[in-house]
Amino acid sequence: MELSMSANEDLAKERARCDFNVSEITNILDGGIERTKQRKKIESIALSNGKCRDVTPEETLGPKERYENAIRKSCLYTKIVKDQVLTLTGLEVLGSNSSVLRRTADAFFKDISPFLLHLGMFVPTIMGQGTPEQQSYWLPRALDFQIIGTYAQTELGHGTFIRGLETTATYDPDTEEFVIHNPRLTSYKWWAGGLGKTSNYCIVVAQLYTQGKCYGIHPFIVQIRDEDTHVPLPGVRVGEIGPRMGFNTADNGFLGFDHYRIPRNHMLMKNSQVLKDGTYVKVASHSKLTYGTMVFVRVMLVNEVAFNLAKAATIAVRYSAVRRQSEKISGEPEPQILDYVTQQHKLFVCIATAHALQLSSNWLWKTFSAVLADMRGGNTENLPELHALSSCLKALSTSDSAALIEQCRLACGGHGYMLSSNLPLLYSFVTATRTYEGDYTVLLLQTARFLIKAWEQAESGKPVTPTVSYMEEAVVGNKYKWNGSAEGIIKAAYYVAAGKISSSVASIRKRMKNGKAFEDAWELTGVQLVAAAETHCRAVICDVYRKETVRLTANSSPNVKTVMDQLNMLYLSHWALERTGDLLRYTSTTEDDIISCQQRYEELLAAIRPNAVGLVDAFDFPDEILQSTLGAYDGRVYERLMEEALKSPLNAEPVNRSFHQYLKPLMQGKL
Amino acid sequence: MELSMSANEDLAKERARCDFNVSEITNILDGGIERTKQRKKIESIALSNGKCRDVTPEETLGPKERYENAIRKSCLYTKIVKDQVLTLTGLEVLGSNSSVLRRTADAFFKDISPFLLHLGMFVPTIMGQGTPEQQSYWLPRALDFQIIGTYAQTELGHGTFIRGLETTATYDPDTEEFVIHNPRLTSYKWWAGGLGKTSNYCIVVAQLYTQGKCYGIHPFIVQIRDEDTHVPLPGVRVGEIGPRMGFNTADNGFLGFDHYRIPRNHMLMKNSQVLKDGTYVKVASHSKLTYGTMVFVRVMLVNEVAFNLAKAATIAVRYSAVRRQSEKISGEPEPQILDYVTQQHKLFVCIATAHALQLSSNWLWKTFSAVLADMRGGNTENLPELHALSSCLKALSTSDSAALIEQCRLACGGHGYMLSSNLPLLYSFVTATRTYEGDYTVLLLQTARFLIKAWEQAESGKPVTPTVSYMEEAVVGNKYKWNGSAEGIIKAAYYVAAGKISSSVASIRKRMKNGKAFEDAWELTGVQLVAAAETHCRAVICDVYRKETVRLTANSSPNVKTVMDQLNMLYLSHWALERTGDLLRYTSTTEDDIISCQQRYEELLAAIRPNAVGLVDAFDFPDEILQSTLGAYDGRVYERLMEEALKSPLNAEPVNRSFHQYLKPLMQGKL
Repeated sequence: MELSMSANEDLAKERARCDFNVSEITNILDGGIERTKQRKKIESIALSNGKCRDVTPEETLGPKERYENAIRKSCLYTKIVKDQVLTLTGLEVLGSNSSVLRRTADAFFKDISPFLLHLGMFVPTIMGQGTPEQQSYWLPRALDFQIIGTYAQTELGHGTFIRGLETTATYDPDTEEFVIHNPRLTSYKWWAGGLGKTSNYCIVVAQLYTQGKCYGIHPFIVQIRDEDTHVPLPGVRVGEIGPRMGFNTADNGFLGFDHYRIPRNHMLMKNSQVLKDGTYVKVASHSKLTYGTMVFVRVMLVNEVAFNLAKAATIAVRYSAVRRQSEKISGEPEPQILDYVTQQHKLFVCIATAHALQLSSNWLWKTFSAVLADMRGGNTENLPELHALSSCLKALSTSDSAALIEQCRLACGGHGYMLSSNLPLLYSFVTATRTYEGDYTVLLLQTARFLIKAWEQAESGKPVTPTVSYMEEAVVGNKYKWNGSAEGIIKAAYYVAAGKISSSVASIRKRMKNGKAFEDAWELTGVQLVAAAETHCRAVICDVYRKETVRLTANSSPNVKTVMDQLNMLYLSHWALERTGDLLRYTSTTEDDIISCQQRYEELLAAIRPNAVGLVDAFDFPDEILQSTLGAYDGRVYERLMEEALKSPLNAEPVNRSFHQYLKPLMQGKL
Repeated sequence: MELSMSANEDLAKERARCDFNVSEITNILDGGIERTKQRKKIESIALSNGKCRDVTPEETLGPKERYENAIRKSCLYTKIVKDQVLTLTGLEVLGSNSSVLRRTADAFFKDISPFLLHLGMFVPTIMGQGTPEQQSYWLPRALDFQIIGTYAQTELGHGTFIRGLETTATYDPDTEEFVIHNPRLTSYKWWAGGLGKTSNYCIVVAQLYTQGKCYGIHPFIVQIRDEDTHVPLPGVRVGEIGPRMGFNTADNGFLGFDHYRIPRNHMLMKNSQVLKDGTYVKVASHSKLTYGTMVFVRVMLVNEVAFNLAKAATIAVRYSAVRRQSEKISGEPEPQILDYVTQQHKLFVCIATAHALQLSSNWLWKTFSAVLADMRGGNTENLPELHALSSCLKALSTSDSAALIEQCRLACGGHGYMLSSNLPLLYSFVTATRTYEGDYTVLLLQTARFLIKAWEQAESGKPVTPTVSYMEEAVVGNKYKWNGSAEGIIKAAYYVAAGKISSSVASIRKRMKNGKAFEDAWELTGVQLVAAAETHCRAVICDVYRKETVRLTANSSPNVKTVMDQLNMLYLSHWALERTGDLLRYTSTTEDDIISCQQRYEELLAAIRPNAVGLVDAFDFPDEILQSTLGAYDGRVYERLMEEALKSPLNAEPVNRSFHQYLKPLMQGKL
């Protein structure tokens, strides 16, 4: 069988008919032409080095070989980009640059590098919670990869509820050491990436005890393996947690300590200190300052899932331009499946959502940088609202991305189920982000608490913060009259949020009137509260996406303006149609309004169709990063599927040995 | 670290508070006490034989070793249950008994057996499409496992649109043979389970050419490997297709022929024949009769996904009874997460849906058996409607089950992401069923075609078939007045379906009025049509679930009646609340109705809570079949997680060799 090497003609035609300047949109998504250049520079340094690329696909290896291969690639990749890493001197630079490094790493890891948490959590925690002295001691060693660290917080028995963590760090003033201990199985650390076999250092989050009193959870830097031999140190029990849905090259680990001693100054002491004699000193408002790292990580996650959703959309749209199916008219050639409105319905919202999340992430990053600058000046006023916002954006962006990546996979039919499409791995990677760093439901319930408070403030005529200012208008009870403009849909979305918050408040009050305590009434209203927080966050995303689209295309060429506006309107109409019940309940939307919204939505699908391939090309993924048989730029879909199939280890020999041992005896009745 | 062996106390308490007779519900779900006994008999034969159980978890093996292990287990399992298999003499018996065998097999295959399609497709196709002579030749050999077969229809370039298949079977009257050929890469067969390395026979679906004319696709039995050496025969190119999201022990394969010759009588000739001289003879209406096998496979699939959803619900509910998190009241012990209304909201609908689908599947099977009996008498009148019904039930049941299994996984937080929970594998297995044997969207569009025709009939006052009889009432345009009873919600669901069908018809007509041809207008209305078909099918499931619940609990003890009714009402209320927009648009439901429905839904969650563990116990899964660290009967969740982790091959040695080769040189700056 000879496999053709020529590129797919349908994709060439699609590119010829695209009516806008693709690189203009690339620049917008990257955050400006300069950042596009910077990204391409790092990509070209990394991709030109072939040594850390796979010859055998990693998913054809056993778990141990797969890990070893990932370590090989991680070390080589680190060497290539080390100069870039050494420039990361603080959270701001880390945020700007590490995401490009992280994204480029996808050319080498279909799954994930065991080093992910080294730059992703170990380094940021030291930056955010170490004193200047601690930073100057640990950061150069970490950024130069003289040590490799990870971050161990979650335990077998506790994840979300971190106040319940069971690992203890008890200060011993006689030796000026902390004694780290795990009293029972459920207190074992569990999940940290790179912990099982790779890291020799680890941030351990533990309950701090000193002078007989518990001061709650604090972070400690703990050496777990000998720097020279890598053998776990005495008193440390560490290992890998076994196969997972994704992250299978990340050696996620467990960790337990048996009265293990570390020096006093290994406690990260920017926010609180334990003095030599064991006195506990609070340096700064703990809760506000630790928000910093949490917000940072959440902003990075929104960015990360936007990136992965864009990959999935690229794969599914290109494949849908190549794949042909059915007869619309008897005797005519089979149409590209991208021509079916049901396929456009599945895919174009994915492109739009990738834009919405990427622009929201860029915007959130700018807001965060400004707040960080404020904090240097001692002003932490805006941090709580930013924290609340980053929580619900993290919840919604990870949940939306995971669902839409899966939608892309299902839209590719059976071939989407092949690992070589890369869609299953993208899904298993992104769906994990919905759980870690704050579970979806828990984060939305936190957001709901903030919203209910704000609602009560608005009710009593007190001023509220900017992201909930819509409540001031909604609280008087007028119903908003639908108008189909972008601004009208966004306003309706805010009214829906207000309506659902108001309903939740009514439910809580009714339950309290019937004798329930507030916390019980709150808990019983949980389903409604989560839904209310979700609609609030959806309104914010719609709003930010709209404003950023308008702002960023102010100087764009006309066709770029048009297609960006179409995508934005598609996103807004899509969500309006998903929430017709809410619109009918909480605004004055009518049946005719819904019908014309549906009609507009269908018109937008048709309008976007000719530019669909151009739009995914604008995400500008090198094939090496996309890693997909279905999504490669040249569209050699079937050829690549067969090329990958032939690499299966089962195809190395015509007859597998199990035939002689089992199959043949069975068929001959001799087993 | 010593791991406790004692069972979890919380689960014991849950079981003590369950107020109904668990085995009564088990019998209802099994289809009667006799079928429970039969199932337990087969389970005990199979489970008492330890030889085909794994010592090393299969997910810690490489792909080749995993396949070999699966063959070992398949052969041993086959030997154990062969006596049962030999009793399968026709589709009816196959349907009743093979599902028990298939379910019991889950004790040995976390993923899937390479033999799945042998009994699942190869045998049923011979039963459904072979002549009596062909059946008497092939079936004894197949049922005795003297040969192992699979079913190859899908090609690299064609799945859903089977008329477009490119494999050809050209009759040569000189030698009385068919020449099977694959003209190009896209015509290669792709996906068939057990095809890559295991099967020596295969049903191949190909375009039949005789006397210079193409007669469309027909099934052929083709030998692909030598029975003695297992080497692929000359002219046959066969291999494995590479790693997939699931089914990784099923050696899904590709297959291509180069002018490969088979005897004339290897065409399955029940419905059409090619005579010696090449004359094509149609014996029976092809389309109607081939429906038989398709309906059979779809009924089996509904049954299969109900079974797997029940597993996921069992795992998640038991885990939620063991897992404790947060403080509701400061200083109090952490509550079981099953006590949170948000968790109940995620899980109880899964139990209810598993019931809904299991009862629908049992009902569908009975209906199908009756139609099969009719067909023996020459009456095929009811087959088209049954086919339409089985199509949309297949679409919705697979889609619902996959989504809810994922909901169960997410409800288990990080631990749900461990393969040892079994939830990721259940998802990857069930999500595939949404695609194969008829893609979700395509099946619903087929259903929509049936519905639109029925609507037009109803409009013109002609009689319609039973499952769409609701249209006769709805077509006059009255709005249905909501009433909160079960029957009222079901009627509202039918009115919603009618409303959405009517809207779709209006859209199509509007487009035709604007000059579009019918097929174009249809295609442009695709998004609405899929939604309309989905609501129709939802109404049918609600209806069947209700009626079967009432019928099957007529003689049950009072508490069983109560809890089954609660689950049914929960399902109905859940779907009403998911579709408030539709209810407001297409019925006279009011805001107050919705509020009281929400309130009732929340009351049902509270009512079901004390019986939740009892309800999943009633699914009666032996631990061996459940295969889950989180879901085992004794609730030793954390102990089992650690036990499984310790089996990871990476934990066999304290320091992995990659440290010396890569990590250490990197850290010392010597790489």
